[in-house]
Amino acid sequence: MAIYLHDIPLPEAISRFSKALVDANLGGILGEEEVELSTKLLGRVLSRPVWAKLSSPHYHAAAMDGFAVRAKETHGATQTSPVVLEYGEQAKYVDTGDLVPEAFNAVIQIENVERLDSSGNMAGDSRQPDKIRIREAVTPWNHVRPLGEDMIATQLVLPTGHQVRPVDLGAIAGSGHSSVYISRKPRVAVIPTGTELVEIGTPVKPGDIIEYNSLVLAAQVEQWGGNATRLPRANDIFEDIRDAVRTAAEKYDLILLNAGSSAGSEDYSSKVVETLGELYVHGVAVRPGHPVILGMIHAKHDRQVPIIGVPGYPVSAALTGEIFVEPVIARWLGRPPYEPEVIEAEITRKITSPGGDDDYQRVVVGKVGDRVLAAPLPRGAGVVSSLVRADGLALIPRGSQGEPAGAKVQVRLYRSRSDVERTVFVIGSHDLTLDLMAQFLAKQQRRLTSANAGSLGGLVALRREEAHLAGSHLLDPETGEYNLSYLRQYLPNISVKVIALVTREQGLIVKNGNPKGIRDLRDMTREDISIVNRQRGAGTRVLLDYQLDKLGIANDQVKGYSQEEYTHLMVAAAVASGRADCGMGIAAAADALNMEFIPLFEERYDLIVPEQHYESSLLAPLWELLDNLEFRKAVKALPGYNINVMGEQIPFVE
Amino acid sequence: MAIYLHDIPLPEAISRFSKALVDANLGGILGEEEVELSTKLLGRVLSRPVWAKLSSPHYHAAAMDGFAVRAKETHGATQTSPVVLEYGEQAKYVDTGDLVPEAFNAVIQIENVERLDSSGNMAGDSRQPDKIRIREAVTPWNHVRPLGEDMIATQLVLPTGHQVRPVDLGAIAGSGHSSVYISRKPRVAVIPTGTELVEIGTPVKPGDIIEYNSLVLAAQVEQWGGNATRLPRANDIFEDIRDAVRTAAEKYDLILLNAGSSAGSEDYSSKVVETLGELYVHGVAVRPGHPVILGMIHAKHDRQVPIIGVPGYPVSAALTGEIFVEPVIARWLGRPPYEPEVIEAEITRKITSPGGDDDYQRVVVGKVGDRVLAAPLPRGAGVVSSLVRADGLALIPRGSQGEPAGAKVQVRLYRSRSDVERTVFVIGSHDLTLDLMAQFLAKQQRRLTSANAGSLGGLVALRREEAHLAGSHLLDPETGEYNLSYLRQYLPNISVKVIALVTREQGLIVKNGNPKGIRDLRDMTREDISIVNRQRGAGTRVLLDYQLDKLGIANDQVKGYSQEEYTHLMVAAAVASGRADCGMGIAAAADALNMEFIPLFEERYDLIVPEQHYESSLLAPLWELLDNLEFRKAVKALPGYNINVMGEQIPFVE
Repeated sequence: MAIYLHDIPLPEAISRFSKALVDANLGGILGEEEVELSTKLLGRVLSRPVWAKLSSPHYHAAAMDGFAVRAKETHGATQTSPVVLEYGEQAKYVDTGDLVPEAFNAVIQIENVERLDSSGNMAGDSRQPDKIRIREAVTPWNHVRPLGEDMIATQLVLPTGHQVRPVDLGAIAGSGHSSVYISRKPRVAVIPTGTELVEIGTPVKPGDIIEYNSLVLAAQVEQWGGNATRLPRANDIFEDIRDAVRTAAEKYDLILLNAGSSAGSEDYSSKVVETLGELYVHGVAVRPGHPVILGMIHAKHDRQVPIIGVPGYPVSAALTGEIFVEPVIARWLGRPPYEPEVIEAEITRKITSPGGDDDYQRVVVGKVGDRVLAAPLPRGAGVVSSLVRADGLALIPRGSQGEPAGAKVQVRLYRSRSDVERTVFVIGSHDLTLDLMAQFLAKQQRRLTSANAGSLGGLVALRREEAHLAGSHLLDPETGEYNLSYLRQYLPNISVKVIALVTREQGLIVKNGNPKGIRDLRDMTREDISIVNRQRGAGTRVLLDYQLDKLGIANDQVKGYSQEEYTHLMVAAAVASGRADCGMGIAAAADALNMEFIPLFEERYDLIVPEQHYESSLLAPLWELLDNLEFRKAVKALPGYNINVMGEQIPFVE
Repeated sequence: MAIYLHDIPLPEAISRFSKALVDANLGGILGEEEVELSTKLLGRVLSRPVWAKLSSPHYHAAAMDGFAVRAKETHGATQTSPVVLEYGEQAKYVDTGDLVPEAFNAVIQIENVERLDSSGNMAGDSRQPDKIRIREAVTPWNHVRPLGEDMIATQLVLPTGHQVRPVDLGAIAGSGHSSVYISRKPRVAVIPTGTELVEIGTPVKPGDIIEYNSLVLAAQVEQWGGNATRLPRANDIFEDIRDAVRTAAEKYDLILLNAGSSAGSEDYSSKVVETLGELYVHGVAVRPGHPVILGMIHAKHDRQVPIIGVPGYPVSAALTGEIFVEPVIARWLGRPPYEPEVIEAEITRKITSPGGDDDYQRVVVGKVGDRVLAAPLPRGAGVVSSLVRADGLALIPRGSQGEPAGAKVQVRLYRSRSDVERTVFVIGSHDLTLDLMAQFLAKQQRRLTSANAGSLGGLVALRREEAHLAGSHLLDPETGEYNLSYLRQYLPNISVKVIALVTREQGLIVKNGNPKGIRDLRDMTREDISIVNRQRGAGTRVLLDYQLDKLGIANDQVKGYSQEEYTHLMVAAAVASGRADCGMGIAAAADALNMEFIPLFEERYDLIVPEQHYESSLLAPLWELLDNLEFRKAVKALPGYNINVMGEQIPFVE
């Protein structure tokens, strides 16, 4: 049994740690500093409220270019019986922002004044005419910004805990301050441990793990307003880790000790914490992230330094940052902890969850029609790409064994809801063109998100109204035509457009130099050949089955037939790694991994688009893209691709 | 006529400027740099896509601590007929993350293995036992993370134009890179012009304007990813401004020339642009922000340097930044321009708008019941506090003369929608306690936003369901009781709770030293006394009317009776500035502005809360606050305040 299986529920872990911080007198801000107003204050947190020292305006200010007057002396002025005022005594020129002189209480706009010389003739544009003539009375305070119109001295300008934005700098300066008090940044040390770790940029050999967790954790800390230092890696030796922690505790406010918290051979973290201080929590019922350690180091001079043992898997590490580190930094800065946007979404496929954990499932989020959908991403704690692609986290709370497809879940968004509404959801067969599309569409305020579910999976998603479009290359063995018969079968009640995207070569991906001398599908029956296949419903699988059938080869004559992968690239990777000798796929995937490719067939890859989405403004930039020369050039450059059909609408009547 | 009245519509102004940028070869990124991976990359924009150089994992990795085996050699193992494997030849110990040695293809978790010595006895925890015994078969790739599970070499990791987040650093490092290419930051010069400007921190005299626009503009530029430099102020002399611009054009990519673009005496900006290059736009039909200038400076060595003349009023300046500067910076960084969240909201009062402009009205946004409401803030272009308080901008598009109360408008949010849902909307009489409440509630994830509409205005807002609660201190002249009779009259159909907040002294605010020897309300009839009053419906106005009536004084015997202000502080400010000799208000307001206060009456100030909101989780922290000792202490410290009644529920039956 792993010792971290003494997992305690997340809220209890948080409350134990929180209590420990308060008991150690670390419940509030760590200190403050007075800083001159500058752009460096952006994002910093006010440690004291800003009360206006000066009213704004701090005098009665002209709101227009014109003449300051006394309102009562304008009474009775009309178009037909104008009033004439003496310059100097009864009127004075003011520019916008000028002080309205003491004796006056209104400003008449320059456009509404006739300027006269001493003889009563028009005096042109003079700013000091002898007289002015006006044809409309004004009320007191007309075009005057009275003292304090904006802010009154002593008024609250900004509260404690506020994070400074550009406009705040204006309000602070305008209210008479040249500096503010802000909370000092918490100093956070990040210590990676583990003998298998190598530094970024080092050439790797099998078993080496590139140490980037400390970079991600440090960047999180900086983003949340702390000051992070990445300390040198500590070896997997109890004494080394202990000494690194002891030294860090003298200088930093918080220590993040990365890895070494699994149940494996490197598990010294908890012992170090127990040796140097107190261990509050070892193991939290949260997934990913179980083996979290929360403790306190007793440092010299009675200093208490909290320590968080961060699990080694990248996804767990990042989530531990969000759940445990961010609130501590928020507390020390005196700002509210970050509260993500939460949106309700339907999950597109079943999620199973260990009932004992708060389970955070990374999801991609999009809006199809009126429904907000969350498509789960691969769950592996090592799959850092899932963090990069994630639009949010769906929480499957402790006590639930999971949720069926279609269930409503709460998603903590990493993006804004507007981003969600700009997301184009593509499900189906994956093609490299979709990656290029995503690249190009990013410039057009569209996010294209594609989930690989195979061609048939895409049609099923369209039927469930869970995608804006699907990519498909399903060969009909009867007609030799692509997709159309499948549409009749799978989408009988949905009007769709069929837009040809590319034709591309399909063939066999083999190792470099083709060591086993594979020539075509017939070699798949050889005793010394093992293949990797695509999943059921994939267009490539349909094609393989069709061609094997034509050759009279049965599935069970092919070794590895049931070894399935979900993308062309993963097929190529399986061959590259030696898990298989060959696999069917596209030339570009072979090329991408420097593998050899044996071209066998050419096939068409189409976009299937329900009419309601085809016409939408969301998808409009996509159709423009198909005519974009730069895009077409990029697709054509992919090995084995032909763009002659790109953008053609394939006639289709149900 | 002001020359900037050649206003052109906003979209045309943007498209002219955009075309000019493209023609000058300034339509894309300005350059790129290769930067080592570090936290400094946060927020920077990728100028090239990141394609994986290395697969991740880059080898078949153990996903558990345990023993690597060949799956086929475990076949047949069951509880009752276990299989025994030789260590070394058939099994090898691996830690999580270790390479699964070439000959093996599965890992058995350490917990599921019995370790044996050479005689077949249990061998304890040895990592190199002689044999292992297993009681369950495993499938190939069990607990193995195959090469490329996360990312496959050549796969797209991140697209061009992506802004780097913490997790991206992990993905970039994990895919084999130690550096990335990012677009270089645009260098932006900010030149303030104007003789009336004084630097932040200088003691001011009337007519001085504290120069903070350049700070706000520089901060905006930095926030959007540029590099801003605030250059010294240029005097209002054509040659000075011209020389400042000419010099800046040699070093910077963009020049922001602040002020000097009004129609007033300082209007040299447009002439400078015409002299040194080309003027494309002078005046845009957008409010606030009319006198915007867009042009291009022809600098040495054929360099083209765009210049934006930014209006002098702070609100106009900030909005000009958002509308014109941000998209240029976005373009030069190669990221999409910032797209705010847009939400539909009902405006709480009529907005009138000049039909010719795109009119951006600053609003406070909250959700009351099911309705999202937008309450307009004061519109003055000088009212920088309205920018600080604004939750967003309601756009009244060109062509519309405004919108009636209750109309739906599109609001571009400055905050997240979650923030909007955490907003407590208070409308009614303003009391300083509400500012303190806002301060304290900020720590409880609540934003308290109060609009001053007077006590009656608050009740009307409750009737319209446009507020969560109202502050009220309406005296019933018949009963001497507060609020209850008004509730019966104004809210006959709404169940409310009445929660006493404070009692406070009302009296006369007079100048320091009370130069006119004012003693009580009777002095208001004196020939040499002019008052400032509160607006109709304000509790203080009701109190004054009641007391004047008791004394038999008619309104028209009181000079200044119709001079109205909306808050206690504004009454105090009017007295302080000499606009009036006295006004009725509370002690704290007098104290705030160092004025003298003549106490006359004590009154109760209540919170009126519809039951549906009283019970809501939104307001729960507010009720806890009324018991909070720190809060009570802070309120008690306000001059003239008594907290004995705080939190009491006033019995009220309709």
